[in-house]
Amino acid sequence: MSRAIAPAQIADSLTELWSPRVVAELDDSYVKVAKVHGAIGWHSHEHEDELFVVLKGHLRIDMEDGPVDLRDGELFVVPKGVRHNPSAQEICLVMLIERKTTLHTGDVVNDKTRSLAEQLRPV
Amino acid sequence: MSRAIAPAQIADSLTELWSPRVVAELDDSYVKVAKVHGAIGWHSHEHEDELFVVLKGHLRIDMEDGPVDLRDGELFVVPKGVRHNPSAQEICLVMLIERKTTLHTGDVVNDKTRSLAEQLRPV
Repeated sequence: MSRAIAPAQIADSLTELWSPRVVAELDDSYVKVAKVHGAIGWHSHEHEDELFVVLKGHLRIDMEDGPVDLRDGELFVVPKGVRHNPSAQEICLVMLIERKTTLHTGDVVNDKTRSLAEQLRPV
Repeated sequence: MSRAIAPAQIADSLTELWSPRVVAELDDSYVKVAKVHGAIGWHSHEHEDELFVVLKGHLRIDMEDGPVDLRDGELFVVPKGVRHNPSAQEICLVMLIERKTTLHTGDVVNDKTRSLAEQLRPV
């Protein structure tokens, strides 16, 4: 059995939007994938940077100094403390790397906030 | 100007093999890309996990309990302390995430070891 992890394939298999799935651990961070559509809402992470990699589709990350548009294979790091609002006009597959302590909606708890327990469902 | 980072494009532009280029910072880690061909040599990183993502091509990571084969878009985390030897029979573009303190040849310094200063040449 191959031990290679195929993030795009796992993201594509997800049935729930904005519900990140942990696919690997990297020291004190998780590598997660998600299927997203619409906007998650403005928030920030006070203590942790957040890496977004677009696996498939188009993700827009609005920030107070302007948007960043990410397409297939492109990445961006939202620095700690920077307010951002990721959104996708069509279904988009993303990979995220963030500290194990990071809630993906940051300082805001809304209907898209997922608990760690939910994120840790086995792949 | 777009602030999106295109790792495959940057990796493809590199002229030197096994010479990682830092493309982003994520807390105390660097996101790097490299163009690789051949084997880097057996080594381990005592204190840090190392994430490999294949952007294009085929990377084989030999470990003592067997190899992992990674193809386009696939990833694998080599856990801290695990001896490994990444190799590519043909030119392969990879993305790596590792602690800022990690030498990419780990506990072994060989002709493929690059200093941090060299890795930090501007993109």
